[in-house]
Amino acid sequence: MKLNTNYQKLEENYLFTEIAKRTSDFIHAHPEAHIIKLGIGDVTVPIASVAADAMIRATEELKHPETFRGYGPELGYFFARQAVQTYYADYGIKIDADEITIGDGIGSDIANITDLFVHGDNGVLIPDPVYPLYKATSLMDGQRIIYLPCTEQNNFLPEPPAVPSDLIYLCSPNNPTGATFTFDRLQAWVDYANRVGAIILYDDAYERFIEEDDKPHSIFAIDGARTCAIEFGSLSKTAGFTCVRSGYTIVPNELVREGMSLKKMWHQRQTTKYNGAPYVTQRGLEAALSAEGLLQADMTIGIYKRNVPLITQTLEEKGIFYCGGANSPYIWLRCPDGMRSWQFFDYLLEKAHVVGTPGVGFGEYGENYFRLSTFNTFENTGEAMQRIAKVI
Amino acid sequence: MKLNTNYQKLEENYLFTEIAKRTSDFIHAHPEAHIIKLGIGDVTVPIASVAADAMIRATEELKHPETFRGYGPELGYFFARQAVQTYYADYGIKIDADEITIGDGIGSDIANITDLFVHGDNGVLIPDPVYPLYKATSLMDGQRIIYLPCTEQNNFLPEPPAVPSDLIYLCSPNNPTGATFTFDRLQAWVDYANRVGAIILYDDAYERFIEEDDKPHSIFAIDGARTCAIEFGSLSKTAGFTCVRSGYTIVPNELVREGMSLKKMWHQRQTTKYNGAPYVTQRGLEAALSAEGLLQADMTIGIYKRNVPLITQTLEEKGIFYCGGANSPYIWLRCPDGMRSWQFFDYLLEKAHVVGTPGVGFGEYGENYFRLSTFNTFENTGEAMQRIAKVI
Repeated sequence: MKLNTNYQKLEENYLFTEIAKRTSDFIHAHPEAHIIKLGIGDVTVPIASVAADAMIRATEELKHPETFRGYGPELGYFFARQAVQTYYADYGIKIDADEITIGDGIGSDIANITDLFVHGDNGVLIPDPVYPLYKATSLMDGQRIIYLPCTEQNNFLPEPPAVPSDLIYLCSPNNPTGATFTFDRLQAWVDYANRVGAIILYDDAYERFIEEDDKPHSIFAIDGARTCAIEFGSLSKTAGFTCVRSGYTIVPNELVREGMSLKKMWHQRQTTKYNGAPYVTQRGLEAALSAEGLLQADMTIGIYKRNVPLITQTLEEKGIFYCGGANSPYIWLRCPDGMRSWQFFDYLLEKAHVVGTPGVGFGEYGENYFRLSTFNTFENTGEAMQRIAKVI
Repeated sequence: MKLNTNYQKLEENYLFTEIAKRTSDFIHAHPEAHIIKLGIGDVTVPIASVAADAMIRATEELKHPETFRGYGPELGYFFARQAVQTYYADYGIKIDADEITIGDGIGSDIANITDLFVHGDNGVLIPDPVYPLYKATSLMDGQRIIYLPCTEQNNFLPEPPAVPSDLIYLCSPNNPTGATFTFDRLQAWVDYANRVGAIILYDDAYERFIEEDDKPHSIFAIDGARTCAIEFGSLSKTAGFTCVRSGYTIVPNELVREGMSLKKMWHQRQTTKYNGAPYVTQRGLEAALSAEGLLQADMTIGIYKRNVPLITQTLEEKGIFYCGGANSPYIWLRCPDGMRSWQFFDYLLEKAHVVGTPGVGFGEYGENYFRLSTFNTFENTGEAMQRIAKVI
């Protein structure tokens, strides 16, 4: 019996578990406190009603012999793959339906695609700070990790290194910093990946928040990306699907390494180790990506965007460095008075009864920084920022 | 870049893909033929209405701010884990809710748990013939496979070998043979696994079809199983959830190897690489495992069981060896006249317009055998067997 001892490299206390623990300890000690959570990146606006209605209709179908369905296609129903294809076409990007697979959320697909690469024998580039999943899966797979420091000096956008690599995780707009690649900056990564033969795993979960025209909504808007990139999409932050679980992955036909088609390998992985996303959630995805669904998504994003100035005006008044917000649901700020991330977390919780996310939880270069999320109501966010203004 | 070249060991034509291809080629050439499918193991009775109604109510909740939910617990909602716990308690088996995780189907969990074991360095025992997933995932992981021949001589039930091993796949009632371990025969496997330190991965998908009292519904009905077994359960064949995707996995607290808790590792895997099953399908699972849901499941199974004598009477009249049916939805038969599996497949398709499953698709010891499924209507099954009776 050889167990995967790489699991022992995982940190004992996952970021959001620790936040939940400290918060509940505080509530236990101060039951009268009215806590406002601007911490975990979970949405608060209900799922798009057009998607919910489609899911209800789909479930009704399953009750009746004439409309019942059994096993679906493992890679996704054609109607769902086509909905994603149309979504990209609206951005002017041509993707074959066959290059798209439908899954149960961006997290699963980003994690499961690592099955295609030999464990313990690939060099992985990971920005720091960034969403913790890439580091965790790379540790579990025993890969060699090189961190790419993202700092105020490089506007939190990493540049390709001088050394070669095998896998590159990029997330744009970035979680937690909100930093978003321009076409030019992303082109540099695509050129690097093609030069050294690496593959970019592109986390596109927040693309719908992009407001600026010089920022691509997909890596496939970049010349040469089809020979070096895999893109992962999500419905979580647009249609409110964090509890519905739906997403998609795009592996281009031209992506070949060592004579092997990555698309074919991914399809082998999914047709063997996965039985397809639920019919009901795929009907939800189809509706969420319809014209009406996208209108609802943009209205939902609009609700979150209203919170941005509430947060940034306070920070500006206090002279605190921040970035993000423009193309992302997150505001990334430097902790006041040189406080460390967890120190500021405890300070805000105690003094303002506001929960945020310690930057160091996203990587060591996140130390002394802090993330505030716009996933809350206008009223709660305003109240939270008034309280914060009083104590910093 | 080191790709997982083990993927190249996968067979090019997956069993059910090849069946679908030959069937569609035949239909194309004979558009007038009325094909009856007793092939793929997919259900035909709609999902339990109590489960569908619960799913619809759950989706309604997601539309409203007061009842909306975001990210759920990765390991499953407590209500769902508790429903599984109660299901086992009804069989007289005590399982902690914390030992249960809720997933998106038995296939995903059986495949994903292989992440806990070092790729390329474990010896795996796989019965032959058996559901193709175990072999496929073991090949993809580069493990050393030893096949356990299941033949008429051993009633298609493998016995523990003389040699040690690391992982053991057991499926009881077996797909495709329907062979089902008695308490005694399964005890021998548990004793072997505890003696050599192996782990049994127990596929329990068909336990609800068991009719005979001397057959356990769970490996945890066997003394000593809690130190050597992981069990996987499914709602597919009971509540008709093949398109809903829901299942559960049980890793006992006592299962420890090399000082590591397998339950802890599985929880690490799922909390990192998985975001939890959809809220909607977990409400479906809860309803499907309620008293009303189980009554509906047993009525559905009753519908399939009515087909068993339609099939077995024909086979008996023709003097054809068969087994299964009593505790399983499948009947496993020896092809008449010494025909090979695919030869009989083509023969039945051409002469009787009936689609079955070639036994060799489940392993080389399945050659010369054939699987018929009871997942169809009484009328279709009767018609299919009349046609078969005429040509064999």
